[in-house]
Amino acid sequence: MISVALHFKQSDTARLKADQEALKKEWQSGVSGYYALPDSQSALLGEIETFSRKTAGFDNIIVVGIGGSTLGAKAADRLLRHLPQRSNKKLIFLENGDPLDLCMAIETINLHRSFILIISKSGGTIETISIFKLLLSKLGKSEADTSCAEQFAFITDEGSPLDTLGQDNSISRFHLPKNVGGRFSVLSAVGLLPLRLVGYSAEKLLSGAKAVRDDFFKDDPLGIAAKADFIANSGKAVNALFAYSNSFEEFVKWYVQLWGESLGKLNNKKVRVGFTPVGLIGSVDQHSFLQLIMEGPLDKTVTFIKLLDFKRTISVPAISFKGLEKNDFVNNRPFDTLINSQADATLEALKSVGVPCDMITLGKLSESNVGALFMYYELLTSLVGAKLGVNTYDQPGVELGKQILEKNFK
Amino acid sequence: MISVALHFKQSDTARLKADQEALKKEWQSGVSGYYALPDSQSALLGEIETFSRKTAGFDNIIVVGIGGSTLGAKAADRLLRHLPQRSNKKLIFLENGDPLDLCMAIETINLHRSFILIISKSGGTIETISIFKLLLSKLGKSEADTSCAEQFAFITDEGSPLDTLGQDNSISRFHLPKNVGGRFSVLSAVGLLPLRLVGYSAEKLLSGAKAVRDDFFKDDPLGIAAKADFIANSGKAVNALFAYSNSFEEFVKWYVQLWGESLGKLNNKKVRVGFTPVGLIGSVDQHSFLQLIMEGPLDKTVTFIKLLDFKRTISVPAISFKGLEKNDFVNNRPFDTLINSQADATLEALKSVGVPCDMITLGKLSESNVGALFMYYELLTSLVGAKLGVNTYDQPGVELGKQILEKNFK
Repeated sequence: MISVALHFKQSDTARLKADQEALKKEWQSGVSGYYALPDSQSALLGEIETFSRKTAGFDNIIVVGIGGSTLGAKAADRLLRHLPQRSNKKLIFLENGDPLDLCMAIETINLHRSFILIISKSGGTIETISIFKLLLSKLGKSEADTSCAEQFAFITDEGSPLDTLGQDNSISRFHLPKNVGGRFSVLSAVGLLPLRLVGYSAEKLLSGAKAVRDDFFKDDPLGIAAKADFIANSGKAVNALFAYSNSFEEFVKWYVQLWGESLGKLNNKKVRVGFTPVGLIGSVDQHSFLQLIMEGPLDKTVTFIKLLDFKRTISVPAISFKGLEKNDFVNNRPFDTLINSQADATLEALKSVGVPCDMITLGKLSESNVGALFMYYELLTSLVGAKLGVNTYDQPGVELGKQILEKNFK
Repeated sequence: MISVALHFKQSDTARLKADQEALKKEWQSGVSGYYALPDSQSALLGEIETFSRKTAGFDNIIVVGIGGSTLGAKAADRLLRHLPQRSNKKLIFLENGDPLDLCMAIETINLHRSFILIISKSGGTIETISIFKLLLSKLGKSEADTSCAEQFAFITDEGSPLDTLGQDNSISRFHLPKNVGGRFSVLSAVGLLPLRLVGYSAEKLLSGAKAVRDDFFKDDPLGIAAKADFIANSGKAVNALFAYSNSFEEFVKWYVQLWGESLGKLNNKKVRVGFTPVGLIGSVDQHSFLQLIMEGPLDKTVTFIKLLDFKRTISVPAISFKGLEKNDFVNNRPFDTLINSQADATLEALKSVGVPCDMITLGKLSESNVGALFMYYELLTSLVGAKLGVNTYDQPGVELGKQILEKNFK
């Protein structure tokens, strides 16, 4: 269950209906394949099931990747790790070429007990390929030969150099559709394979996403078009996502990439557009970023997320400290009530000073709800991108840095 | 060693000298006590040394606190945890009233083997006091009586309700100066005590900070005044801190609180001012937020941090994959060179499109360099606050939410 309450003035229905239609055309045009992921992958699901038997005996699943190759699975695992179906395999992400962290990882992880997924859409990401080489070397190998098939698999575009390398050496390969970009790929093999290998249901992730997509193209009960319309025309430079549970720590990073990289670019009139995404965790960031939203420039919109069912509940004990009786109003009350009341109170406070807000409520942390949330944000991003007139699915701005790196590397 | 290169036009020296002088007056006025922390705490250091013997036998140090009570120590421990003087005690922060995380923490931590620091400047932070009650209850106690003295200590303002509670029950108390706010308190007992209890040198943290402060008030070799002047007058809404090492993951959160909460407020002309702080980790966020900086609105400044000595070094093995030879330029080269070259290349790319940048270079991750970095950012924040005409040290905007919480709590 996912519901959304919009605390700002909504546009007329005809306009929103037109946006919905435009997005349906975009789906049909094939410019991005993420729309189709919930129902285009039955073959993949079968492959994943078979493959998961191969990794059953390993203690660790290591994902080597960066950006869109890791953020989605990382977010989902952080949200769902308390579920009973989560196996006790460690799911380890090696993303950054930070030598200190790499040294510590290599010393503490038993690589021989690890199954390793190399994920790179292009097949040539410098960090990913370099860490792949490092792991090979630590496993005593000097090349990616057929002996790698036992404990490596690749997730990449069909025909990429990594794909060919896998093919030449009988290493298992999974493809993501060519028209699915990294940051929209969590519901492809990129996210589903690692998540399934540690026990989650890939089907349920997809079914939750499918329901949100189908509902959106029917009568948009979550008001995604209204929210996109508001944000795109708001003139606000910053969009904050304020999620009231530690479980969203990695999800907000997934959102930051999706939002920042999809929308921050030159539009079809060569104007620089986009919004600065900010990920916040409540109530912790009430003691940090909130002051700026309350009293700083009114250049922000804020989306709250709260959770109705935390799965575990625990109450504040009925202990009263002399001089601190003012804190006793939460005694005997569940911590859930405290944190959710903080979300409500903060929304009220922000509304009172004129900050446009909305509240996403999630029933519980389940695979289908997490799939739903991914799709909700992907559709929202596509809608805003269409209204801004950008290509939501490319990222031309990161190429120059790569060129300079290669040219100046000494 | 810390050095800074400014890649933007600097103001004339006379103006910067005046800003420096104004800050010296602010220090002397006593409006904030953080300036004096590097040399006002010899008594505290003695107390901490004595106290550390008391906690020697415990496996864990638990810090219960939120916001400024935890962010500094958390940042320093993340930056320094690889140092040999770091003991193998776990340093655990309980911050959020998230019931799922609290349940999991209570089940996995042996509370009887834990020394617990309750940190709250006001002494009445709702999350902190509620979690304190929870821990007492799990230890089988129904009040904070004298039996708590064995495994609890309080860090709070002198005379706060928590201070009185401690005094009445012979529980050890440490005070931070009244005129040191939470987000400027890392170099007071708030940060120094937990850091010392896990093996770091409090003296070295302070000496690094002292050197930066004294240098600033002498001839400002790091150009702090020039940077503050530029940012305050830049008209840029967003300041990103792009640190090229995973070790800065928590430090960037400390920066976000310091910057957002100190500067985001009504100024002396009742105008809403402030900047949106964004914490980024390189090269990971090159695959996320960078696109927005490169091609989105030119409303950002970017500060890079890089590390000369990662303490550990490891090279990319000389393995060449067929079809991926374009990645071989990093073969046989240390990962340090890759990550630092990425920082340099990204700075070049951003400069080329007109984004104002600067680069902080840290020699290595040592206590004195981390102390230096804290002081660098505190001074920078004070300078910008003075130029914006705000009270850098208060946070009036977070009160309304608290009032609504108490009023509407059901």
